[in-house]
Amino acid sequence: MIRVGILGYGNLGRGMESAIRQNPDMEFAALFTRRDPASVKTKTEGVPVYSAQDAAAHKDEIDVLVICGGSATDLPVQTPEYAKYFNVIDSFDTHARIPEHFANVDKAAKESGHVAMISVGWDPGLFSLNRMMAGAILPEGKDYTFWGKGVSQGHSDAIRRIEGVKDGKQYTIPVEAAMEAVRKGENPELTTREKHTRECFVVAEEGADLAKIEKEIKTMPNYFADYDTTVHFISEEELLRDHSGIPHGGVVLRSGKTGFEKENTHIIEYSLKLDSNPEFTSSVIAAYTRAIARLAKEGQSGCKTVFDIAPAYLSPLSGEELRKTLL
Amino acid sequence: MIRVGILGYGNLGRGMESAIRQNPDMEFAALFTRRDPASVKTKTEGVPVYSAQDAAAHKDEIDVLVICGGSATDLPVQTPEYAKYFNVIDSFDTHARIPEHFANVDKAAKESGHVAMISVGWDPGLFSLNRMMAGAILPEGKDYTFWGKGVSQGHSDAIRRIEGVKDGKQYTIPVEAAMEAVRKGENPELTTREKHTRECFVVAEEGADLAKIEKEIKTMPNYFADYDTTVHFISEEELLRDHSGIPHGGVVLRSGKTGFEKENTHIIEYSLKLDSNPEFTSSVIAAYTRAIARLAKEGQSGCKTVFDIAPAYLSPLSGEELRKTLL
Repeated sequence: MIRVGILGYGNLGRGMESAIRQNPDMEFAALFTRRDPASVKTKTEGVPVYSAQDAAAHKDEIDVLVICGGSATDLPVQTPEYAKYFNVIDSFDTHARIPEHFANVDKAAKESGHVAMISVGWDPGLFSLNRMMAGAILPEGKDYTFWGKGVSQGHSDAIRRIEGVKDGKQYTIPVEAAMEAVRKGENPELTTREKHTRECFVVAEEGADLAKIEKEIKTMPNYFADYDTTVHFISEEELLRDHSGIPHGGVVLRSGKTGFEKENTHIIEYSLKLDSNPEFTSSVIAAYTRAIARLAKEGQSGCKTVFDIAPAYLSPLSGEELRKTLL
Repeated sequence: MIRVGILGYGNLGRGMESAIRQNPDMEFAALFTRRDPASVKTKTEGVPVYSAQDAAAHKDEIDVLVICGGSATDLPVQTPEYAKYFNVIDSFDTHARIPEHFANVDKAAKESGHVAMISVGWDPGLFSLNRMMAGAILPEGKDYTFWGKGVSQGHSDAIRRIEGVKDGKQYTIPVEAAMEAVRKGENPELTTREKHTRECFVVAEEGADLAKIEKEIKTMPNYFADYDTTVHFISEEELLRDHSGIPHGGVVLRSGKTGFEKENTHIIEYSLKLDSNPEFTSSVIAAYTRAIARLAKEGQSGCKTVFDIAPAYLSPLSGEELRKTLL
């Protein structure tokens, strides 16, 4: 039995709790929270809730601690800190800061003799793995990643910060024609605008200037200005009824050539269609939690990523069963 | 530089030669053949050609030997035999006999202190990896594998054995509606007939009884009887002009549920569209050849499969480069 601790009980933490219930070799051993522990109750019966500050005192009760904080400010501090006491795993997703985060976590984990793993999920995570493997298999080729259709939390937040906006949700949508061109092996050069469109559902405050809101969204630098953006104004009821899910997904494609004259084209495509982004992310984390528990048992230490873990470690089946039933 | 030996110079062996040229850290160090070495010339200049019987004498010239024989009778003998002298890799694809082949190769490789790898390619191989990982991530779900559109060598051979048939080619075609139902999360139960159709292009001998040939194909047990099969009679020129490629591909899908009430559905899809089945298979083998050379350098021994190799071993990039550019 792998005793899993969860730090943080937001969307991802609750997704982890649900994922643990689907894996019979795991148990939800403790929840750590920055809120008052007395104010938090887990869905699962009988799980102790501790203050995040006191986590170190419970290090012997936990095999792997899943850190469910945000990438902007939580994880850069939390993951190296908790790696002093626990085997840890996080879903750090600020691509540009991964080398720095890796170095900090690796140092802490090596010093304390724990196994750590960062940037687990689907992007970074499964998408990274597919980009890497497809590139190693077809060295002469081109990569494409499309995201969506799905909710972008960052873009939804950006809309909600606009004056006169009460609530809003933004969907990132891949351009079907661009994906089709890649699938046909045409190796197109695609601009930002040609790859994705953005669709916004906005609840305005009463009496707000809708034209002004729409213009402010469509011209917002970094977030919307480089995209074809559609804005729909809807009622609060409609937003709740039709847009309260957190779906996402995407496609990683590699188009490559082989043959003495490069006469043959091959397309490798990996795609995800997810009803719940946080629940799928935590399902990926659960499988890698199993891997981390095993690596720790083998006496390994230091920071790992999806590139470093042999796939067999993710499965509850033995090597013999895997070869017999899945190879 | 990884010195790669190739045993066997058929479609797969020639694909390997081509793949080696696309990987700057590999060189085609020697070809081993069961034919008279004097009668075989490689496309690449200056590659020595040796008799397969004398391979052991050249063991110090080769880092990894790629065994490009057939699964029915060649590989069960060759892979354990050559593992006595070399690090070896093969594409053994008789799924039911993998456990037995693994045991034989593992024993030979452990006794001689070499690294061996079996069943490398796309199925078994990349498809196996995706089935396994998707199952570990979504433990409550259902797997589907569709093959094609592509040429089945076994079915083409079966057609050619029929009296009155001069030549022929068979395509396996996945049923689009079945794949769509899976993609929608409908979890259909699919019979053999509902998953694939078969399309045959046949060149008949002059004066042959076409109706009899067509009937014989469509009712052939195991090969065609359980499928909806279409037969087209064409001229030898048409067969050469339109059907001399060896395309293939397929799709691995997993549809799984998450959430406290299993209310969310997720679809993981991995698909390949390949102009040349042997060239893609050898491209996969080339990436794993790099992994085997590295594992051997680390002093490992015994038989591996795609489940046992951490993905980073496939790439020429360092861990640091991978994290920076691909995670």
